[in-house]
Amino acid sequence: MTQMTSVTDIDFTKGDYLPYLDKGFVGLRDVMGDDTSIVEAARTSYGSGTKSVSEDRALIRYLMRKSHTSVFEMVEFKFHLKMPIFVMRQHIRHRMANVNEYSGRYSVMTDEFYIPDLDRLQAQSVTNKQGSGATLSDQERAHIMEIMLRVSDTNYKDYLTLINHEGEDGREGLSRELARIILPLNNYTELYWKTDLKNLLHFIKLRADPHAQKEIQDLARAMGHFVQAKCPWAWEAFEDYSQHAVMLSRLDQNLLQDIIQISNTNGQSFADSYAFIIQKLGDKKAVYTKYGMSKREFGEFEAQWKLS
Amino acid sequence: MTQMTSVTDIDFTKGDYLPYLDKGFVGLRDVMGDDTSIVEAARTSYGSGTKSVSEDRALIRYLMRKSHTSVFEMVEFKFHLKMPIFVMRQHIRHRMANVNEYSGRYSVMTDEFYIPDLDRLQAQSVTNKQGSGATLSDQERAHIMEIMLRVSDTNYKDYLTLINHEGEDGREGLSRELARIILPLNNYTELYWKTDLKNLLHFIKLRADPHAQKEIQDLARAMGHFVQAKCPWAWEAFEDYSQHAVMLSRLDQNLLQDIIQISNTNGQSFADSYAFIIQKLGDKKAVYTKYGMSKREFGEFEAQWKLS
Amino acid sequence: MTQMTSVTDIDFTKGDYLPYLDKGFVGLRDVMGDDTSIVEAARTSYGSGTKSVSEDRALIRYLMRKSHTSVFEMVEFKFHLKMPIFVMRQHIRHRMANVNEYSGRYSVMTDEFYIPDLDRLQAQSVTNKQGSGATLSDQERAHIMEIMLRVSDTNYKDYLTLINHEGEDGREGLSRELARIILPLNNYTELYWKTDLKNLLHFIKLRADPHAQKEIQDLARAMGHFVQAKCPWAWEAFEDYSQHAVMLSRLDQNLLQDIIQISNTNGQSFADSYAFIIQKLGDKKAVYTKYGMSKREFGEFEAQWKLS
Amino acid sequence: MTQMTSVTDIDFTKGDYLPYLDKGFVGLRDVMGDDTSIVEAARTSYGSGTKSVSEDRALIRYLMRKSHTSVFEMVEFKFHLKMPIFVMRQHIRHRMANVNEYSGRYSVMTDEFYIPDLDRLQAQSVTNKQGSGATLSDQERAHIMEIMLRVSDTNYKDYLTLINHEGEDGREGLSRELARIILPLNNYTELYWKTDLKNLLHFIKLRADPHAQKEIQDLARAMGHFVQAKCPWAWEAFEDYSQHAVMLSRLDQNLLQDIIQISNTNGQSFADSYAFIIQKLGDKKAVYTKYGMSKREFGEFEAQWKLS
Repeated sequence: MTQMTSVTDIDFTKGDYLPYLDKGFVGLRDVMGDDTSIVEAARTSYGSGTKSVSEDRALIRYLMRKSHTSVFEMVEFKFHLKMPIFVMRQHIRHRMANVNEYSGRYSVMTDEFYIPDLDRLQAQSVTNKQGSGATLSDQERAHIMEIMLRVSDTNYKDYLTLINHEGEDGREGLSRELARIILPLNNYTELYWKTDLKNLLHFIKLRADPHAQKEIQDLARAMGHFVQAKCPWAWEAFEDYSQHAVMLSRLDQNLLQDIIQISNTNGQSFADSYAFIIQKLGDKKAVYTKYGMSKREFGEFEAQWKLS
Repeated sequence: MTQMTSVTDIDFTKGDYLPYLDKGFVGLRDVMGDDTSIVEAARTSYGSGTKSVSEDRALIRYLMRKSHTSVFEMVEFKFHLKMPIFVMRQHIRHRMANVNEYSGRYSVMTDEFYIPDLDRLQAQSVTNKQGSGATLSDQERAHIMEIMLRVSDTNYKDYLTLINHEGEDGREGLSRELARIILPLNNYTELYWKTDLKNLLHFIKLRADPHAQKEIQDLARAMGHFVQAKCPWAWEAFEDYSQHAVMLSRLDQNLLQDIIQISNTNGQSFADSYAFIIQKLGDKKAVYTKYGMSKREFGEFEAQWKLS
Repeated sequence: MTQMTSVTDIDFTKGDYLPYLDKGFVGLRDVMGDDTSIVEAARTSYGSGTKSVSEDRALIRYLMRKSHTSVFEMVEFKFHLKMPIFVMRQHIRHRMANVNEYSGRYSVMTDEFYIPDLDRLQAQSVTNKQGSGATLSDQERAHIMEIMLRVSDTNYKDYLTLINHEGEDGREGLSRELARIILPLNNYTELYWKTDLKNLLHFIKLRADPHAQKEIQDLARAMGHFVQAKCPWAWEAFEDYSQHAVMLSRLDQNLLQDIIQISNTNGQSFADSYAFIIQKLGDKKAVYTKYGMSKREFGEFEAQWKLS
Repeated sequence: MTQMTSVTDIDFTKGDYLPYLDKGFVGLRDVMGDDTSIVEAARTSYGSGTKSVSEDRALIRYLMRKSHTSVFEMVEFKFHLKMPIFVMRQHIRHRMANVNEYSGRYSVMTDEFYIPDLDRLQAQSVTNKQGSGATLSDQERAHIMEIMLRVSDTNYKDYLTLINHEGEDGREGLSRELARIILPLNNYTELYWKTDLKNLLHFIKLRADPHAQKEIQDLARAMGHFVQAKCPWAWEAFEDYSQHAVMLSRLDQNLLQDIIQISNTNGQSFADSYAFIIQKLGDKKAVYTKYGMSKREFGEFEAQWKLS
């Protein structure tokens, strides 16, 4: 019977595996292609006749900037991953990937459970409805830790009881497919996951984002580490034109252009021009109403341009 | 804050919801198209000029039989589902679908856990490495049931403790995204799931199969109930040409044709012709070796044609 | 034998068909869901407890703004389309859709060819390597039109000759699957195309863009007309936060923030602050080099903020 | 400006390119993984603990036989292809692939057109509505060939006229994106195409089938050649359990089992038992009606078991 790969079996000095959370790993098992594969495909599709190395880098940056994404599909990454089931539940939502996961129907689940660091034990965020916020007290954290360790331990013991007890005739215990349903979501699982660079970058963009759950952020960042190593130009372009780019809505543009125009017309600074608009319209609510923004959206605009 | 839909909120007499397992449901929320949409698409693609109703049914059967599957994509089903997380983990593997699931980051998970019927508590199968086999004793089952109920109950209490405890300054407890990781996999979740008829039938074929886990078989069958009601011709054709069809490998065909030929040549019965082949080659192992089959594969051949 | 649907068979006054190019159409055959389906899915996934109609609109705008795109997959559109083959070749690149196309293997292709308006006959663009540019002279356009009409006419006659000539024994002519290979790419084809709102909006964003070929822009706009009619809030949000949004790269942001900061610090206008930066660094090339931009990228920045 | 890759640029002796049709090629540009990648994934998912080489082959055969297809997604193939546009139109229907195609908007299309061999010029099939049938007379074929060569030649000349004519001010001619619409569907195009082994085998199964158009059959077979070379066990299993397997419908099984049972009960041969059933029910129509088959379906049953 197969056993899950233990993190102690991995030789992290070999460089293609990174530790992940307390008992997991992110391993790069195989790559097909690199930056030159992107250039090669682009030269076919978009007909650019550039040849020099500096032009190759510039071509990749151009393709990323203009969202000509299909060329990035020509590179394929295959990962060997070990992660808690609750992270896998988010990870699997990215459909454009090939997956083979350890099966709890065939094999016994491992006695490994994700236990967060003490620093990670934060209160429910007040501002971000789905996130974590203020740090908890030492006492609270100790109490939480005690619960998490106890649940992981007792549930696994119960699981073993279910599958191992023997009937009078030497039968095995409860089927593994049923026994596993009492294991908690911090139990670890293992899988192969394969996808193309376009979809991988999209995954990283969404999941390395600060609004994603911390544990999947770490997963996305570990993957990003490997992309950077294998496709440095594509990664650099991704950072500049996708990951750290911001979307400026039509409403944002209207307001920003008006501030700039007033600045240029009146010879006022940017901040003074903004104050001028508020004064003219009456108050901030009148401003965001005129420009069609919600209050929250307007607050984000102000924060972005340091106007609040 | 949103709460999960309780099964007690559903009016099952309305006919578009079916109860599922002990606390879940399978609801058909919307359908686009029916058997006539398949016919309409086929008339465009495959140019059949048939017109009568009986010919419509025959056309659908022909399309299913010849695996002209794209026309079945013209019908779309949207389901409202409530299922245990361990079933969702299998369900989500079917990628060609649209999904929106209840979020345990935003909202509090429900105090509902799947507890199998006593009949369902079976031992690990000896023959099917991933399945359930012999029924357990009453005593064993009572013990298992006690464990499952206890784990569900205590884990949920621990979950509430994690999210509800207040700090000295009135802060909320541990973030929901972290607290939920101690909930077991039999906890219920809720989702909308939308896919086209081609992919839905493929899902049903794989998951209503006796080798699938019982709990997802029930899900697939409930969905099948709705397909049958909305697209009766497609459903009937699916049963005849896909779900209850069997694949006859090249090896199976070679052996079967040889038996038949000997039967016709020698004027022997089918069974006698088979015995003749065994005798001529020496033993059964010589037969399956000659035909390139594994022992297990050969056993399935014999069972299928009642030769063992 | 099936014949292609002629545009003269369509009753455009019925409102769910729009004429498209000279001989095609864009028909909305079916829709599943509307703005409320998006809200319903979001309430499950993102747990918002809002209830009023104005809050529904605001919720959809929020979801679009934050790229919570999965909820838009809950709406499905099915189109009946007639378009030239060269447009279909671009259209089919959008993979997340269901397609059933008229088959030139089963059926005879129609005697309908796209002939552009005279206004559309433009020279190869000098600036946009893939686009159309300056208008041609009347004489040139007359000559082009003559060629297009002649080719369409003679190729179709040749096609008919290939399929219709009879052998001495009453046989049919060349198989349709081979005869059609001499038809030009402006020949019309017909299809059903079904996709979800998320993918439909993505298609519209890419293909209604001024850089797309004019003929597929028209297709995307006709589809947009139907989205606006069926999901007005989603459409409005799409226009504000996707179609007419702009991506501000990390480099753009760095430069823009520096201009604004100098404006605020020095009490200068936005334009003067920009001139200050150029002066300080020496020239424009020094500016875009420092900020990591290409010359072309920098030109686009200047144009966007009216700095050139 | 990019030019399409000419077949004369390819060194076919290098072994990873095959000629395809009269002017095209099928090149294997890259592969990720092989048979052992399938085994590795299976050992994770399905928990088999087998280790020896002969067991590896047996495992792959088992996985193919039981349609455990996800493990075959762990191998990725990237092809460099040159094919006529009408073949590309069929090829692109397989959506689970990554594609980068030569662009007729950016670049000038090549003066290369598919001209079928004389042997390929067959009449429209009478039995297969979408296929080619009887060979045509020498005179007919000569006439067809003359038309195909003439159309390809004159259309290309007209294309060059459209793009090359110069206006009085040195402007270029008609934009390439419009000029190309008069090129016929036998014009060649070039692309990179990348997909996983599961989807590749599915493509080959559907398109190497005798009912597919001859030209795409050749494409599928060339790809199959490379699969066989790189993943010999998977290919062998594919041939046995997928490509040359047949689907036995529920109706087929019912009739076949009844014939066999009568043969065993009465001690009659298979053929005599079949004749017995016909006699008992009256005639063949009564037989296929009773078993729920169409006449055509019944004919295929008889042909398969040599009963007609």
